[in-house]
Amino acid sequence: MNLVLLSGGSGKRLWPLSNDARSKQFLKLLNDEENQPESMLQRVWNQISKSGLSENAVIATSKSQVEIMYNQLGSDIALVTEPYRRDTFPAIALAVSFLYSEKKVPINETVTVMPVDPYVEDFFFEKISLLEDALINSNADLALMGVKPSFPSQKYGYIVPEIGSYSSENSFVPVNYFKEKPDAELASELINQGALWNCGVFSFKLSFVLDYLEELKIPTDYNILANSYDMLPKNSFDYEIVERAQNIVVQPYEGYWKDLGTWNTLTEEMNSNIIGKAAMSEELKNSHIINELQIPVVMMGIENAIVAASPDGILVTNKERSPEIKKYAEMFSDRPMFEERRWGWYKVLEHNKYDEGNQVLTRRLWVESGKNISYQIHFKRTEVWTLVKGEGLLILDNNIQHIRAGDTIKIPLGKKHALKAITDMEIIEIQVGSELTEDDVTRFSYEWDDIMSQITQHVNI
Amino acid sequence: MNLVLLSGGSGKRLWPLSNDARSKQFLKLLNDEENQPESMLQRVWNQISKSGLSENAVIATSKSQVEIMYNQLGSDIALVTEPYRRDTFPAIALAVSFLYSEKKVPINETVTVMPVDPYVEDFFFEKISLLEDALINSNADLALMGVKPSFPSQKYGYIVPEIGSYSSENSFVPVNYFKEKPDAELASELINQGALWNCGVFSFKLSFVLDYLEELKIPTDYNILANSYDMLPKNSFDYEIVERAQNIVVQPYEGYWKDLGTWNTLTEEMNSNIIGKAAMSEELKNSHIINELQIPVVMMGIENAIVAASPDGILVTNKERSPEIKKYAEMFSDRPMFEERRWGWYKVLEHNKYDEGNQVLTRRLWVESGKNISYQIHFKRTEVWTLVKGEGLLILDNNIQHIRAGDTIKIPLGKKHALKAITDMEIIEIQVGSELTEDDVTRFSYEWDDIMSQITQHVNI
Repeated sequence: MNLVLLSGGSGKRLWPLSNDARSKQFLKLLNDEENQPESMLQRVWNQISKSGLSENAVIATSKSQVEIMYNQLGSDIALVTEPYRRDTFPAIALAVSFLYSEKKVPINETVTVMPVDPYVEDFFFEKISLLEDALINSNADLALMGVKPSFPSQKYGYIVPEIGSYSSENSFVPVNYFKEKPDAELASELINQGALWNCGVFSFKLSFVLDYLEELKIPTDYNILANSYDMLPKNSFDYEIVERAQNIVVQPYEGYWKDLGTWNTLTEEMNSNIIGKAAMSEELKNSHIINELQIPVVMMGIENAIVAASPDGILVTNKERSPEIKKYAEMFSDRPMFEERRWGWYKVLEHNKYDEGNQVLTRRLWVESGKNISYQIHFKRTEVWTLVKGEGLLILDNNIQHIRAGDTIKIPLGKKHALKAITDMEIIEIQVGSELTEDDVTRFSYEWDDIMSQITQHVNI
Repeated sequence: MNLVLLSGGSGKRLWPLSNDARSKQFLKLLNDEENQPESMLQRVWNQISKSGLSENAVIATSKSQVEIMYNQLGSDIALVTEPYRRDTFPAIALAVSFLYSEKKVPINETVTVMPVDPYVEDFFFEKISLLEDALINSNADLALMGVKPSFPSQKYGYIVPEIGSYSSENSFVPVNYFKEKPDAELASELINQGALWNCGVFSFKLSFVLDYLEELKIPTDYNILANSYDMLPKNSFDYEIVERAQNIVVQPYEGYWKDLGTWNTLTEEMNSNIIGKAAMSEELKNSHIINELQIPVVMMGIENAIVAASPDGILVTNKERSPEIKKYAEMFSDRPMFEERRWGWYKVLEHNKYDEGNQVLTRRLWVESGKNISYQIHFKRTEVWTLVKGEGLLILDNNIQHIRAGDTIKIPLGKKHALKAITDMEIIEIQVGSELTEDDVTRFSYEWDDIMSQITQHVNI
């Protein structure tokens, strides 16, 4: 079975920890078996690996998530990168073309699509393996996973089975219809009819989606499709495919399933009431502090509250209201103040904009031993690097030099530069210029050997 | 009349805005008549100036407050600086010796002592002027100001007058006894007897305290006393003097008087519910955000709450509990992250301590045009200055040079340096060393002309 993991958009619902560069699935707020911080992405990837599904798994993602994906899962993972965000149908179609034309997957093989971040038991992934049998034995177009509801939720979609269709022989049942977000009364009624929550997991034969693409006269070759991505209808897979499919079955999953997409649902799964440097008055049992800043947070006398602090901002909310953060977070949308990159991470210490149009931005960069920053150039800023830890190789203006803690380097506007860490490095970087964004960068190459081959002078190594 | 303003200790009760370098009286949380931010110190000093008392006013303070005093009130104010913190009796005794031996105040003149930060009406200071008459007409040792109580508070001290002693002839009455923090019932009873709150304002003839010092065989010369400060009993003026005085009168003040010493009392006097970059859900009427950070604060759905954020930390509290902050703040006592200095201010952007014992600290310095940083040397750190704004003169290692935005300067450990701003300057400073505290500094001189006379080489101006 081939697994396609959909890694979704930014989501401001976990602001200030989530931002455009760090969606909710990347936040390290859970704990792994050794009690180390773990993101939802890492948790799911571990579960997939344990269930033996990771070898044939690809992650469908967007450009802005590539660096953090490599950072959290390592560089061996297979990524299918959308040229830009469109919707779930285009993302799945691109992944299908990748399996077909790049990985040469036979067209009668099963493909299972799922979100990259459900909070579920390990057992969920055994059930995913069984979807292939359901698809084959039912001869359906689509086999879905349905979660047995634990309460009549009004915020999920329901998969309603055909009446009287449950049997002891099969693990699956035919689907009658779908119902999005019913009211409480209808939800209860649907549950009585055996309806299940739609958790966004579905299997199909590779040919099923390929045939549909051909019908729309859309190329099925990955490289061609990636370059004509706007040909794909900007639509969700649910509307574009699921609603048109004639023959759909669903396989129930009876176990823990949760969408940790808002602060109130997420904090319920956290091992501890405090993450980071913080203190709370003793009587508070149902309040949480998540502090990514270096400065301490103190909370006194407020029950059912969540305080979340990151370099992007500070949220103070009661739990019930926490899903409303989106609209407030948008008032302050600024550049991201923290990002994980392939080579390590950076954190903005301060960003000042002066009346005269000049800007100054101070960042701390952490570069992992052996990793390198791509060969690049900025046209709107100079940079001053002060190395405070470690050593590495710097390429600047066609020269290579060995640099160490204590060195200060000026990178003038318009000069090509690259860096490779020999040991873990820390750098305080001061940017000065007219526009200080992550977009002001032209990259020449990423691989160090390739960068080395482009320079001609070797000095002072 | 000579006025002595007592500028008290640090106070963690307004953490995280107050710290050892910035006591509550220096916080700019009020608004002046032009709606500009104003500190409690500045408010009182303006009131004193308006009432004509500032010419003969001295401020008794400690070393750690000198720089911020000059910053907020200008360099013309008269300061009496304790060599170290002891108590109110030593502080007043030192101020008395200053008036006597330095300012040559005649010994029969009146001295009035008051705290530097009561929140009162302008009318309060007219009443202070009248204390001199009360002292003379009553022939008492001490004339106190007493605030007419507005409710039976259990947290103030009460001044109880002699029974039946109020008269229409005099503005003062003889004091019978004092009662600290009575319970509610006793407080009501005392108020019925005409008792007044003790607001720490008292007048005496200069000779009264001088005589007492001579009795204790303590020198009355300012310079001698400042160098033998430990001879003074470590005691409050109330215990050392007021309790022993035979003949005390009190003059009532009927008007607004408040101690804005805790977050709940302070926020009541603030013009706006939000200071700084922040948003609140619309329904919140009785909550406050005070944000000194650059990153936004969002508060949703919590009534009667205070959020205060500064480079020192973040406080989230309900109003009633806010006076308890002291004990939590002490858990995190670190170096101050923001300080106002004679030459401008600095703000710590980040302070990292590494396992190997090395530390890195990044600050932004703002130096006001025309001001200078003293000639100094550090023995435990190197500094790298990157000038991001303005221009100035740098003296480093016996050389003077003109420096401008864009320059980067290394100040090695053990090298003397000084800086004078030609225009307003901003500097990003990176400190690297084994111990990064404000104490690691040896100052050679403060006056620029004096510094210039010490250097012998002039290069590159």
